[in-house]
Amino acid sequence: MLKNPEEEHPKKAFGWAARVQSEVLSPFKFSRRATGEKDVAVKVLYCGICHSDVHMINNDWGLSYYPLVPGHEIVGEVNEVGSKVEKFRVGDKIGVGFIVGSCRSCENCANNLENYCPNYILTYSSKDYDGTITYGGYSDILVVNEHFVVHIPEKLPLDAAAPLLCAGITVYSPLRYFELDKPGLHLGVVGLGGLGHTAVKFAKVMGVKVTVISTSPHKKKEAMENLGANSFLVSYEQDQLEAAMGTMDGIIDTVSAPHSLLPLIGLLKSHAKLILVGLPDKPLELPVFPLILGRKAVAASCIEGMQETQEMINFAAQHDLKPDIEVIPVDYVNTAMERLAKGDVKYRFVIDIENTLKATSEL
Amino acid sequence: MLKNPEEEHPKKAFGWAARVQSEVLSPFKFSRRATGEKDVAVKVLYCGICHSDVHMINNDWGLSYYPLVPGHEIVGEVNEVGSKVEKFRVGDKIGVGFIVGSCRSCENCANNLENYCPNYILTYSSKDYDGTITYGGYSDILVVNEHFVVHIPEKLPLDAAAPLLCAGITVYSPLRYFELDKPGLHLGVVGLGGLGHTAVKFAKVMGVKVTVISTSPHKKKEAMENLGANSFLVSYEQDQLEAAMGTMDGIIDTVSAPHSLLPLIGLLKSHAKLILVGLPDKPLELPVFPLILGRKAVAASCIEGMQETQEMINFAAQHDLKPDIEVIPVDYVNTAMERLAKGDVKYRFVIDIENTLKATSEL
Repeated sequence: MLKNPEEEHPKKAFGWAARVQSEVLSPFKFSRRATGEKDVAVKVLYCGICHSDVHMINNDWGLSYYPLVPGHEIVGEVNEVGSKVEKFRVGDKIGVGFIVGSCRSCENCANNLENYCPNYILTYSSKDYDGTITYGGYSDILVVNEHFVVHIPEKLPLDAAAPLLCAGITVYSPLRYFELDKPGLHLGVVGLGGLGHTAVKFAKVMGVKVTVISTSPHKKKEAMENLGANSFLVSYEQDQLEAAMGTMDGIIDTVSAPHSLLPLIGLLKSHAKLILVGLPDKPLELPVFPLILGRKAVAASCIEGMQETQEMINFAAQHDLKPDIEVIPVDYVNTAMERLAKGDVKYRFVIDIENTLKATSEL
Repeated sequence: MLKNPEEEHPKKAFGWAARVQSEVLSPFKFSRRATGEKDVAVKVLYCGICHSDVHMINNDWGLSYYPLVPGHEIVGEVNEVGSKVEKFRVGDKIGVGFIVGSCRSCENCANNLENYCPNYILTYSSKDYDGTITYGGYSDILVVNEHFVVHIPEKLPLDAAAPLLCAGITVYSPLRYFELDKPGLHLGVVGLGGLGHTAVKFAKVMGVKVTVISTSPHKKKEAMENLGANSFLVSYEQDQLEAAMGTMDGIIDTVSAPHSLLPLIGLLKSHAKLILVGLPDKPLELPVFPLILGRKAVAASCIEGMQETQEMINFAAQHDLKPDIEVIPVDYVNTAMERLAKGDVKYRFVIDIENTLKATSEL
């Protein structure tokens, strides 16, 4: 039996939760654990709305526990540190992303790839070490082992930093790992949402030539003028596809809806990779001939370990790279989810937790 | 209008051809070009029967021209050399594989990857530079640019060398390219046919630990005792799959029939690759979640350039590595095709062209 969420831990906490599958979010009282010796306690300032929050609320992946407090793009301020905490002090601005725990002893953990540890603990809707369920950043406070916390450099605006914790690392890591970060390479970015627009920004800073591949012709001006993409390709326009066949050194595909991989594989040069970072809930069709004829690969990538997450945040700060965001009050969150499902946001909603959450505690 | 195949070139040639789609092969008179200055003329001694010969006869890939003389696993003896030939002399034992031409000027050609040149010329059923159709190795003679010819080292038996020209390089190259050739790594090999059994042999010589993954439990004894596989896994046995989950550094998948990739992806360690070398004519289903959660990839590979083909042949000779073959007379070829379609061969048919072809010229 799960205990009453308000009483299972000593620290009173407050957030917004989906009580059951697919329900709108509403104010929710729960609790957080006492600050352990390696923990930091965090006052949440901002939390980004990731597309996977919608999937998790709807239990699209069969992973969800309810009540469910979403949020894994969290920026906050440390207000308490455990006796053995080494990296943080009270007052530090910090970030928490997709995971808050891992086994710390497997091969992946030893290689700073905690995100690929088979026993990782998701920031929300996941079983924690003590068997209680984790709650995310649509809430006032958080208690996290310092290993899963990153510093936010002073130069980064705190609200715009939030989406870097998931969207940012999701696209930054494959650019590095698959060596698509070299000046002069030609990268395709499929989909111009939270992930896609951040991929364009990172790739441009790295000196990579970027073509945005989209089903929405009206995004062209924005992609080229505001985000700095070098070209824009409408994915259903056969002549545009044909003109670009075999020209790309790699493609980051951020689309989670079902879509055809065939034209994307065609856009790749020989020996190049199509990298999936969206999470479709059904299998995609994989045409084997075009893969074989060019020794191409379809790969995938999922956030990254804590060390590279810190490196990515530092890189963003150093290059003044900020996701484009729309800051909203927490009581707008259900409307925001509806707009997000329609793609009606440029490009990431970020909830102003610090200034708007408390006001909803009596709703 | 295509000319009469007997008269379009000056050299009289004789082989076995499918006159129309899906027809049995029968004796066929045609012609070969005069030996050009960079060409070698070759007396064919042996030719392997590759599974793709069956697909090409049936036009499964929509690439076939008829009459169609199959054969791209060709071993022969040079009997004439052009005035500018540098690498070969009359009497040399040589091999010809999947391709007999490429542009020699693109990036792939410059990198010794003629097999990925967009303008390669297949050894049979392909348009040659002069517009005539190429004919394969189920025939008495061949005329080929020396660039697309490899030496067969003395140590290799000529009949068993034939399958190396396609099956051999198809599995050797991905082991090298994807760095699965390191002692102690754990490789899965899916399917134990012409390609699969050769993959096991190469991997074992490289010091790699091999698990054969098959739908045929009766192949276990053979795989482990004769081919030296370290273990054997029946792909529909859930408990065997589960016991091996996450243990493989890579998988070479030789199956061209439709099959599920999900269990194979599950067998891979994080960051590992499933490499397709079979050629299914329909798309396979690609489950994205299990790829993303382990940063895994599905890649593909298709034979390899001439330099690596020579390297592979030399490596096989050096290590006494020989495919297991059944040598047949050419008039058995239609029966062999039927047996091949049923998987009834250990593991490659090789036609004894030298000793049996001529006898069929009056059939």
